[in-house]
Amino acid sequence: MAQTPLDYTAAGVDYSKIDPLKILAQKAASATAGNLAGHGVSEILASRGESAYVMDIGGTLIASITECLGTKALVADAVRPITGKTHYDSIAQDTIAMAVNDLITVGATPLSIHAYWSAGGSEWFADEQRMRDLVLGWQKACDVCKVSWGGGETPALAGVVEAGRIDLAASSVGIIPSRERLTLGDKMQDGDAIVLLASSGIHANGVSLARKLVERLPEGYASKLSDGRLYGEALLDPTTLYVPVTEALFAAGIVPHYSANITGHGWRKIMRHPGNFTYRIHTLPDVPPVLAFMQEHAGIDDREAYGSLNMGAGFAFYVAAEQAEEVARIANGLGVKAWVAGRVEAGPKQVVIEPLNLTYAADELHLRA
Amino acid sequence: MAQTPLDYTAAGVDYSKIDPLKILAQKAASATAGNLAGHGVSEILASRGESAYVMDIGGTLIASITECLGTKALVADAVRPITGKTHYDSIAQDTIAMAVNDLITVGATPLSIHAYWSAGGSEWFADEQRMRDLVLGWQKACDVCKVSWGGGETPALAGVVEAGRIDLAASSVGIIPSRERLTLGDKMQDGDAIVLLASSGIHANGVSLARKLVERLPEGYASKLSDGRLYGEALLDPTTLYVPVTEALFAAGIVPHYSANITGHGWRKIMRHPGNFTYRIHTLPDVPPVLAFMQEHAGIDDREAYGSLNMGAGFAFYVAAEQAEEVARIANGLGVKAWVAGRVEAGPKQVVIEPLNLTYAADELHLRA
Repeated sequence: MAQTPLDYTAAGVDYSKIDPLKILAQKAASATAGNLAGHGVSEILASRGESAYVMDIGGTLIASITECLGTKALVADAVRPITGKTHYDSIAQDTIAMAVNDLITVGATPLSIHAYWSAGGSEWFADEQRMRDLVLGWQKACDVCKVSWGGGETPALAGVVEAGRIDLAASSVGIIPSRERLTLGDKMQDGDAIVLLASSGIHANGVSLARKLVERLPEGYASKLSDGRLYGEALLDPTTLYVPVTEALFAAGIVPHYSANITGHGWRKIMRHPGNFTYRIHTLPDVPPVLAFMQEHAGIDDREAYGSLNMGAGFAFYVAAEQAEEVARIANGLGVKAWVAGRVEAGPKQVVIEPLNLTYAADELHLRA
Repeated sequence: MAQTPLDYTAAGVDYSKIDPLKILAQKAASATAGNLAGHGVSEILASRGESAYVMDIGGTLIASITECLGTKALVADAVRPITGKTHYDSIAQDTIAMAVNDLITVGATPLSIHAYWSAGGSEWFADEQRMRDLVLGWQKACDVCKVSWGGGETPALAGVVEAGRIDLAASSVGIIPSRERLTLGDKMQDGDAIVLLASSGIHANGVSLARKLVERLPEGYASKLSDGRLYGEALLDPTTLYVPVTEALFAAGIVPHYSANITGHGWRKIMRHPGNFTYRIHTLPDVPPVLAFMQEHAGIDDREAYGSLNMGAGFAFYVAAEQAEEVARIANGLGVKAWVAGRVEAGPKQVVIEPLNLTYAADELHLRA
């Protein structure tokens, strides 16, 4: 490619500016934990820095989280004139997935969801088709995850949110029915297997790059992928909800030793666990055509692609080696393709992707966020 | 005044466009409640439509909520050049207040808070003073409410959130330690007293009107109030956190029959309870100078002012008449001024403000949101 490769900084996301705030906020947040003692409640300390926060409330373990969609709704807005569909049913599922796919990593069963739909003006809500798609898509995703939609907030914030746009987020509360199911990393060990679950496409991370790329494509979102689908439409395939898989594992008596939702930072997230382990990958999942297309047209190498996009792996389980095939079988049985893709080894913290001859060192994942 | 009075529609908030979505969403949300049965969990049905959602999780009553700040951060941004302060410590408290002041209305003790700070770009987080104020203000408000700051989300969403702006929200999880403390309206009865708690100023509702008004003021946010303070600075007085008051009531063995957080819709919120009661107010709280100034300069009458702003009453308790003085005494002892201001009567649903000769009929509060 003659053009400069597109990477995340070029696409407008500069983590170096965000990270200092995150660290300051994390310290301040930790300092408030003592407030719980007066209520007879305690935090599960190891959940700080994990994907969901866990409190022990009189013996009941409650997990909670708030997550945002990001900028994927901008893709839906741009693609609607091409497909004639609002795609907000998919966007609803994406938003819920951002919350529940994180919540389940600590071993929780999600119970409730609150919606946060913050629009650039009240006229956003006057588009009946879009509004109906958003509401019914939200309801459907709640049904798939067996959660109750408990309420929400639908402000119109002209001057804060861009006109015609919407800032979507979800918060979720879940329960960890027994302490044995708490998955905070203490169970992981040398020899565990890594089972990767298929993503449905871009999910909701890497969207800034996906949008930036459109500027380079003569046909924009209407560009054809290798499978004949449109780039924009494929980008809007909704994020896989992994809740049915974790629930089925628990029902089968399988407790993962650790779990990671592969989101920002791509496969570098595979080393999310706080310990020092080497994650050796021997089998690659199929790369969804939309991600292969992005890598090609953005002109980025495998290191950049796997370091920022999910490249076909939306979620990782770290399980006892002898349970790995069973975990994959259960996921496959639920229509979520799964691969026993690697193993955890004692050793320096790094992700080694053998088929690509690629290694991400520990310092390439600064934040456990 | 020669100019047209400013009201909410003129200030850009058109509830008639938002309300149909809210109703559609409420129906869809209710339909998902059955999902809980498979988890051995049930919702407290009466909490739907109340300010926080309550689930019975194996006998533990957990309340949850997500609430947004609204547009008040725009005021902080505009006032900063005048005062030289970022005011984001106050803004942090406002955001937390939006969540916890709602959560406590159902009888909950807030336990945890998640932050949702969604900026228009990563450069928002590079302003160190503002970032420090936001973080430390957030921490301080958590300490006042005795909650643990469990985590949060700090996305940079260029294209969704306006450049240089931030969309702030908070979600909270709380516990209702005993079923007797659940405050969902079934306890309220003819003869109950209404105790109003002082607001600190505008809180975070009516801000669109406050901002619109600036266009009419020759000195804008630097306009002087009757007490000599600047309009902009007074607008940024942080919302009172009422958690210490509810906690003190519970500690004294007092369970309100109902509670209402006076936010959007102003004093019409006094009839938030689903039943048919007449709320007769005989005593008015002091009107904060900033709200008196707004009423005067916006050229709105008492009906409009009390129907959209808190006018000095930030929170309402409905309590057994014989406990009313004790409730007010406890609040006053915590530095929150309180008035035994009226009574609940059997009768048509309406708010009667006798000193102003004003009545809001039931159909003037369409939504219980």
